[in-house]
Amino acid sequence: MTQNNHDSRFERGKRALAEIDGEGGEKVIAALADIAPDFARYIIEFPFGDIYCREGLGLREREIATIAALTALGNAIPQLKVHIEAGLNVGLTRDEITEVIMQMAVYAGFPAALNGLFAAKEVFAHRSEAEALGQERAA
Amino acid sequence: MTQNNHDSRFERGKRALAEIDGEGGEKVIAALADIAPDFARYIIEFPFGDIYCREGLGLREREIATIAALTALGNAIPQLKVHIEAGLNVGLTRDEITEVIMQMAVYAGFPAALNGLFAAKEVFAHRSEAEALGQERAA
Amino acid sequence: MTQNNHDSRFERGKRALAEIDGEGGEKVIAALADIAPDFARYIIEFPFGDIYCREGLGLREREIATIAALTALGNAIPQLKVHIEAGLNVGLTRDEITEVIMQMAVYAGFPAALNGLFAAKEVFAHRSEAEALGQERAA
Amino acid sequence: MTQNNHDSRFERGKRALAEIDGEGGEKVIAALADIAPDFARYIIEFPFGDIYCREGLGLREREIATIAALTALGNAIPQLKVHIEAGLNVGLTRDEITEVIMQMAVYAGFPAALNGLFAAKEVFAHRSEAEALGQERAA
Amino acid sequence: MTQNNHDSRFERGKRALAEIDGEGGEKVIAALADIAPDFARYIIEFPFGDIYCREGLGLREREIATIAALTALGNAIPQLKVHIEAGLNVGLTRDEITEVIMQMAVYAGFPAALNGLFAAKEVFAHRSEAEALGQERAA
Amino acid sequence: MTQNNHDSRFERGKRALAEIDGEGGEKVIAALADIAPDFARYIIEFPFGDIYCREGLGLREREIATIAALTALGNAIPQLKVHIEAGLNVGLTRDEITEVIMQMAVYAGFPAALNGLFAAKEVFAHRSEAEALGQERAA
Repeated sequence: MTQNNHDSRFERGKRALAEIDGEGGEKVIAALADIAPDFARYIIEFPFGDIYCREGLGLREREIATIAALTALGNAIPQLKVHIEAGLNVGLTRDEITEVIMQMAVYAGFPAALNGLFAAKEVFAHRSEAEALGQERAA
Repeated sequence: MTQNNHDSRFERGKRALAEIDGEGGEKVIAALADIAPDFARYIIEFPFGDIYCREGLGLREREIATIAALTALGNAIPQLKVHIEAGLNVGLTRDEITEVIMQMAVYAGFPAALNGLFAAKEVFAHRSEAEALGQERAA
Repeated sequence: MTQNNHDSRFERGKRALAEIDGEGGEKVIAALADIAPDFARYIIEFPFGDIYCREGLGLREREIATIAALTALGNAIPQLKVHIEAGLNVGLTRDEITEVIMQMAVYAGFPAALNGLFAAKEVFAHRSEAEALGQERAA
Repeated sequence: MTQNNHDSRFERGKRALAEIDGEGGEKVIAALADIAPDFARYIIEFPFGDIYCREGLGLREREIATIAALTALGNAIPQLKVHIEAGLNVGLTRDEITEVIMQMAVYAGFPAALNGLFAAKEVFAHRSEAEALGQERAA
Repeated sequence: MTQNNHDSRFERGKRALAEIDGEGGEKVIAALADIAPDFARYIIEFPFGDIYCREGLGLREREIATIAALTALGNAIPQLKVHIEAGLNVGLTRDEITEVIMQMAVYAGFPAALNGLFAAKEVFAHRSEAEALGQERAA
Repeated sequence: MTQNNHDSRFERGKRALAEIDGEGGEKVIAALADIAPDFARYIIEFPFGDIYCREGLGLREREIATIAALTALGNAIPQLKVHIEAGLNVGLTRDEITEVIMQMAVYAGFPAALNGLFAAKEVFAHRSEAEALGQERAA
């Protein structure tokens, strides 16, 4: 209904960003506050408010596409890490993410796939630590 | 069992290539015969015999990853068309493929997404024609 | 005031698209109608309604940036041609456009600059023809 | 006059490098001394002696083009930082540089623009510190 | 002695261009005459007068490097064809060129290698035709 | 004879990897053990067991091609360093490697060549240190 006016794109995008990218996304938005606050708004509105909220493709599939593209492009490792995290957040398993990245050796070469795998290794390790810490606290 | 010796990689890859890329894949293999027959063999063995046959990720997911990567890289339009075809062959809908390509505007820019969409438009049109022809013949 | 709601982004973007890209832009939008009409809307809304309409940088400067980037990336020649046209539409001279493209040899290599120059050559020739035809008709 | 012989290309390029890149440029030249001194000379002669000294496009416009291209390519962050510095040196404002980088989201994707903005943030912060220190000393 | 002044760079470059790129190079230079004659001069002076004339690496090795890079980058097929020709001119065999291109599958993916092989196939066929014609005339 | 079955590809590749990449290659393989052991196997089998072992091009030539490609692509500096090391291992001189990297300024721009030269500088310095240490021990 009010889906097309500015507020709802922004609100919708903010919810999607929180669900998908979690803390990683919020940090990026915060880091833009003093240099390009409008760009922070655009990120919320267009990728998250417009694209990720579209019907017709699930969030698992969308993260497969994003992880594949960022691995293949190879020049945006910080964003790849955010989206490996995001993939886990929306239900991809570590093995599925590893499969997607390995497959990129075919389309973008072995170095791109290797750098993607090492990014995943870092994210997985960090996540395991955080989970171990959480369980300890809960114990 | 014999899964790891040369013949089975090649045989397995050939079946996978036929299932996934169909005619498009066979044409590529044939076109290599006089210049680099070994490379034709490698394509069958490594991407298809090793990677696409792996468990842990379905063919639909694998084609989402490939279509995303080739759209983002933007310098392999003929291979992108083969994999849009392949996506349809393994069960992706036209809408799902279009969603994947549109999403690439976020990660590789609007021109890359646009060129991907025009590639899809061509493949879809060609497919519709072929299907119409098939139905006519069947009638 | 109403600047932030959907209609004004779209309307504002449509005016900007017409002013900047002229016919070239309209053709792109029309070509998307049957495959991805939402993507046509996004192009109007985000690049043109959000970005090109921003204060803080003139349209001449924006087209210099776009021509530079598309020449350097080298995988979006059709879009480069649209923006060489656009550069002329917003007041860049042929010589200025040629200078921008030549400079890309330093940052993306001589082949990228060469392919950019040949794209410019085609656009300039087409434009000269169109102008000659226009003068003839006016005579 | 003597503009076309070797010495003048080198001398002209050296002056241009000092004016445009300042300290950042000199550091690059010095770092090449032990591994590839001829390459240091080529950088002075071709990009600076030949290209940046050409009439037909101002230095502000040339830096807009370079910042756009290096942001879009995304694989040369150290050089992007040198040229954000250079942009400030030849009269671009921080806002204008930010606008150029933001616009690259359209042509090379949001990650490329984000990484460009974070590079700018670093250069701006470093510059502010240096200026504060300079004012302190002058006080 | 006079090796460093403008005339000798240009003359030296012209000879190198003729030896290496043959007709393909001359066509590129001619095509630039009306749009960017200075760029034609730069191509002769910098890549050919400065780089290809350097001692320390033979022309065969230089063409291996260029064919590898242009195949891997994948966005400059016309220039790749010129340098496949050039590789043959300076003594590389068809098989050696094919090996270099195939190897790029490892570093830039199978599509980049495939497109390189198809470019080579075209150049080889064209060359065989020209040779057959030459032998006929000589008979 | 048994050249085509799985064991020999793996064994052959392992020997080639040790000869070419030395310690650098082994570290990469080890780093993959916990995240993607199959990918470690693929690296040994396809690039090293299939490609580098092919006749028709020497290892010196193959490393020239790889160093050129990785410099030009510019998004795989760790792998470039491994292959600068590899180039030295198979008989390229430091000067020859420097020449290959410098030449990439022509095909991928000066920033790509600069980043390649700085990678080489690091590898060379590290190698000199290791050699000095070795001589000391041997004394």
